[in-house]
Amino acid sequence: MKQYKVAVLGATGAVGREMIKILEERRFPVGELKLLSSERSAGKKICFYGEDIPVAAAEPSSFSGCDIVLGASPNKIAVRFMQNIVDAGAVFIDNSSAFRLHDDVPLVVPEINPGDIKKHRGVISNPNCATIIALVAVNPINKLSKITKMTVSTYQAVSGAGAGGPVELFDQIRAVFDGKRVEKNVFPRQIAYNLIPKIGDFCENGYTTEEMKMQNEGRKILHLPSLKVSCTCVRVPVVRCHSEAISVTTERRILPEEARREIISAEGCRLSDNTAENIYPTPLDASGGDTVLVGRVREDMANENTLSLWCVGDQIRKGAAANAVQIAEKLIAL
Amino acid sequence: MKQYKVAVLGATGAVGREMIKILEERRFPVGELKLLSSERSAGKKICFYGEDIPVAAAEPSSFSGCDIVLGASPNKIAVRFMQNIVDAGAVFIDNSSAFRLHDDVPLVVPEINPGDIKKHRGVISNPNCATIIALVAVNPINKLSKITKMTVSTYQAVSGAGAGGPVELFDQIRAVFDGKRVEKNVFPRQIAYNLIPKIGDFCENGYTTEEMKMQNEGRKILHLPSLKVSCTCVRVPVVRCHSEAISVTTERRILPEEARREIISAEGCRLSDNTAENIYPTPLDASGGDTVLVGRVREDMANENTLSLWCVGDQIRKGAAANAVQIAEKLIAL
Repeated sequence: MKQYKVAVLGATGAVGREMIKILEERRFPVGELKLLSSERSAGKKICFYGEDIPVAAAEPSSFSGCDIVLGASPNKIAVRFMQNIVDAGAVFIDNSSAFRLHDDVPLVVPEINPGDIKKHRGVISNPNCATIIALVAVNPINKLSKITKMTVSTYQAVSGAGAGGPVELFDQIRAVFDGKRVEKNVFPRQIAYNLIPKIGDFCENGYTTEEMKMQNEGRKILHLPSLKVSCTCVRVPVVRCHSEAISVTTERRILPEEARREIISAEGCRLSDNTAENIYPTPLDASGGDTVLVGRVREDMANENTLSLWCVGDQIRKGAAANAVQIAEKLIAL
Repeated sequence: MKQYKVAVLGATGAVGREMIKILEERRFPVGELKLLSSERSAGKKICFYGEDIPVAAAEPSSFSGCDIVLGASPNKIAVRFMQNIVDAGAVFIDNSSAFRLHDDVPLVVPEINPGDIKKHRGVISNPNCATIIALVAVNPINKLSKITKMTVSTYQAVSGAGAGGPVELFDQIRAVFDGKRVEKNVFPRQIAYNLIPKIGDFCENGYTTEEMKMQNEGRKILHLPSLKVSCTCVRVPVVRCHSEAISVTTERRILPEEARREIISAEGCRLSDNTAENIYPTPLDASGGDTVLVGRVREDMANENTLSLWCVGDQIRKGAAANAVQIAEKLIAL
């Protein structure tokens, strides 16, 4: 079996570390692993198959000989090195939002649009985490009848803001217990015992950049250019896993039972929906897994041809790192 | 000024205690205060204007001479004593859900339908907490153009489950810190660092009893019998204040600016909405107040004639105790 030289750009962050773990878990055929980071994090070591691999500072020449570069860095870094990666002949599977809406960059959720991978010209983008989780949950419904619109409220975990998010939540929880001043660095408001209805920056239309991603990326991934999505994104004091309440409108009426059957057989989802047995998904249930849990499937009471549901997924894994590695798997199988 | 003999039924619970505090805060003309509870809680004392008032076990004869009985007890207790209260000549302002949908019982949010109070025949119901908060927020919009439907996702605080809710959250948070087993009594699943997409019991249609209240009570309070509301109610690890993401559809299109102006001048709401200044409401901002904070007002991207907004209110105060005392104020002013 062919072995690949894989680099992880942004190896020391929450998503980068998870990518390395998932490469090992899924036995991706890594011949050589190169770990790259900022100057600040260079010199750290990360364990891969029992071996401590040193992290080097990323430079334009770092990608020579690489087959695949998994990107887990901020947009600025992704933009800085993109051409170097492509010039080195590697495929850049990038988790930043920098290239997601570029026409020549496939934006891929492997369970939904794996065929788009082959159109790449050196860069493949990994979608936004809340978008991946929502789309994996509604994709089975879209197969039954085309989705025309969605209304989404998110409940997003603090680890979506990077490794500093959980640290800030725990520090604030402890400060509240000790009656000390609550300090904020990562989040714009206290997140302990609180909610923050703003993720990303505000756009002119009153939506946040995070909220706009669901429609813009959803259209591209589902190949539904006129899909409408109205979204409210909220940070909640949960450590891991994003949850979403979704109303999804389709061209024809779909009964909950029909949707449930399709979800059961869909790749990437697990049905967790039995009101008689009090079965519904919570963030703790999805933590550490690569499956989106879907429950509370019912007919929407306010809108025709609409189903309401509740889905939960581990946004560091399926919402980011696992999705990127799954793209790499599809890529090498082409 | 006339003084009233007021009883609080369920005086030792979270809502009952808040009612007593609010009677004092709002200088309700209480001539005599009678505190009633279950056998189990009888004998406790609660402070009112500096005086410790003993709590007695409620009996059928407890209401003799009362003008107003504020009910903060479970449905079963409200049903048990309702006829005794009415027979004693008192008006029962009841926070339980037992009588809310009865034809001869007004269901009142004083900012919305104060006129319904005068139709009472001894019982006036206080609406569900999440419903009060949502309706106070959308009432200014309903004045501009009739609401036809709403899609609501709630983020409900643990204190909505009674005084035991916050105790369980804090105990679980501490157990997680100490690496101990997380115990559950109040909530069906761990609530620390988690979400529970089930409040109340499941109905046959897949909705919970809590979710159905928003449509059923909303129709009655807003005098909109064909109002459609689709709701997802979720418990979040927040101590106090319910938050809600609402999409509200009206007969005609309303621009966000027009809605904001109406919210600014509406009784019971405060506009907290300025994206340029990063102003939006969070649960900590609304805690301890009687005002519903409304922010994130914007045009819905998926539905015509629809505004999206985010509102937050203290569900123990405006969602329960303060609303009941406000009903009593309107009642004595008749």
